[in-house]
Amino acid sequence: MPTATAYAITSPNTPLRQITIARRDLRDDDLAVTVTHCGVCHSDLDAIRGYQGPSPLVPGHEFVGIVREIGAGVTHFVPGDRVAVGNIVDSCGVCDMCIAGQENYCREFPTLTYGGSDRQDHTTTQGGYSSEYIVSERFAYSVPDDLDSAGVAPLMCAGITVWEPLRRWSVGPGMAVGIVGLGGLGHLAVKFAAALGAEVTVFTTTAEKAREAARLGASRAVVSTRPDDMAAERGRHDFILDTASGPHDLNPYFNALRLDGTLCTVGMSGQPQFDPLALLIGRKSLASAGSGGTIGTRQMLDFCADHGIAADVEVLPLGQVNTALERLGRGDVRYRFTLAIPESGVPPRREPGVNGTAD
Amino acid sequence: MPTATAYAITSPNTPLRQITIARRDLRDDDLAVTVTHCGVCHSDLDAIRGYQGPSPLVPGHEFVGIVREIGAGVTHFVPGDRVAVGNIVDSCGVCDMCIAGQENYCREFPTLTYGGSDRQDHTTTQGGYSSEYIVSERFAYSVPDDLDSAGVAPLMCAGITVWEPLRRWSVGPGMAVGIVGLGGLGHLAVKFAAALGAEVTVFTTTAEKAREAARLGASRAVVSTRPDDMAAERGRHDFILDTASGPHDLNPYFNALRLDGTLCTVGMSGQPQFDPLALLIGRKSLASAGSGGTIGTRQMLDFCADHGIAADVEVLPLGQVNTALERLGRGDVRYRFTLAIPESGVPPRREPGVNGTAD
Repeated sequence: MPTATAYAITSPNTPLRQITIARRDLRDDDLAVTVTHCGVCHSDLDAIRGYQGPSPLVPGHEFVGIVREIGAGVTHFVPGDRVAVGNIVDSCGVCDMCIAGQENYCREFPTLTYGGSDRQDHTTTQGGYSSEYIVSERFAYSVPDDLDSAGVAPLMCAGITVWEPLRRWSVGPGMAVGIVGLGGLGHLAVKFAAALGAEVTVFTTTAEKAREAARLGASRAVVSTRPDDMAAERGRHDFILDTASGPHDLNPYFNALRLDGTLCTVGMSGQPQFDPLALLIGRKSLASAGSGGTIGTRQMLDFCADHGIAADVEVLPLGQVNTALERLGRGDVRYRFTLAIPESGVPPRREPGVNGTAD
Repeated sequence: MPTATAYAITSPNTPLRQITIARRDLRDDDLAVTVTHCGVCHSDLDAIRGYQGPSPLVPGHEFVGIVREIGAGVTHFVPGDRVAVGNIVDSCGVCDMCIAGQENYCREFPTLTYGGSDRQDHTTTQGGYSSEYIVSERFAYSVPDDLDSAGVAPLMCAGITVWEPLRRWSVGPGMAVGIVGLGGLGHLAVKFAAALGAEVTVFTTTAEKAREAARLGASRAVVSTRPDDMAAERGRHDFILDTASGPHDLNPYFNALRLDGTLCTVGMSGQPQFDPLALLIGRKSLASAGSGGTIGTRQMLDFCADHGIAADVEVLPLGQVNTALERLGRGDVRYRFTLAIPESGVPPRREPGVNGTAD
């Protein structure tokens, strides 16, 4: 059984450290992918913070790499191809959601790229903070030639998560679209919505980010902590995509919607907080979406190639993963970290541990 | 100043009793309407139960009558016309909602037909349990000739409340639509959705009502208290209109929706109860709607005329309003009470009081 070098959390409240993990032998439909770039998602931080063990867990569910070897039945890829993998790597394949190409909503729950349970051998999946990943070709995607791997990696989770609702609600010319939050998800949502032709308004708590909104393609920016400015948005927007994580009041965003407008949350944890009357007045809708399916992912990558869109990333070597996580935890990133993974999988140098030593 | 005979609540927890109320002198755009039929809405019961006084309150916000007199500037009606009035009688007229013909969502809040505050003289509006009502022609609607007044009255609140969301979500041929609750609103929603060409499934807690669903136009009925039957609805419906009042669990209805389906509530009070994951899985939407606007009301009445649709009502004389309210309170009506109002406004006989004497 092949092995890979990976960064894992191995005990609660300690930094990730380098370990060697087993990777499965290739199944007929599998690709062995040498991971070159892996994005750092906010949910990685949640997984690490919530880690209780005992087995090591390797995070990472948005990565790009090179196909090193293929299973006997692989038809769409050859060694040397550049591929991307997102946050799901399998699904039941037969439910209504899977048949619709929305494996992310699989009725039997999709297999997550890390922390999931493999549908065949029931081992826990280990993620892309790793030198190699074995994945079914059904959940690997060709990376368009003109896109940079470091910027593509975050498309595979942050990107698809915002792409699909923008498409579902037909965002395009003539529409006024609000994007709440300007982080990993939000900055891609702004790029997509602007490229789709909408008039984009950014809602951010950070005055500094409001000033950056135009560079990303937004027409307008509102600092959401200013009640008067928020009230002035009344009835202005056809669709608002809320990428902010953590609990927050949705009422000002319902107020900002036009008749029949929709507020879709993609980053939220917990129960949505809103006054039922704010939903009713103007016949608004509250929607929620998460991640994406195979069809949408291919469409997004094609769109990104056509429009030259990738994530704005700060690249750090895999060995500095703890620095990346610590900085992400305090919001110090514009707009996503991508870990560059050396060919050997071994970090080029040790970094100091964040809450102790690295190993 | 003209007067009218009306039934009002005059002190908490006592039956309605007959009183004489003042009606305003005709303004230029006003109609004086001799009320002939007034529906009894569940919200009337809520208003009566919540009544704290001290002034008398006359309920009733879905009624039909005959124009007796018109103001100097009235252009659309003449005396003798049959007109219907719903639950709003004025609005700001200039906000985005009013301009869209959705005065029910007026940003300045519409003037309710009873218990509202008149925008000109600031008196409290008194409703249609009454021999006469004075209303601006802007909020009066011609009643199509072929429709019976007793069955039309409930269209003006129960009907429009379900009509607008069915239209907003484009209910029609090829769509599977669920209607939750088979009361005043639900039975009209079934008639409308079936006439619009959808496949209609009724969700009801009452096995007896499930058996009546076909007569109203439903293809299928599910007793919603049977968990296995509810689970079997998984992913079946494009749109579900929830007319049930009172708090109830929305999760089984989200489960019953297809990818991208919408659950719209119209009768609910309080905070919607659902698991955020039930909303997310399948990218569902929760919407809320209430009442209707002038454009939708006219369209609904035209549609009703074309399809011969009116409410299934039990007609009682106005003098038996307390009986109607008491029976409505325990769900003993198929599907709406309409009060028939004698020409004099005086009930033909006294009825025994429900919680005491009638006066």
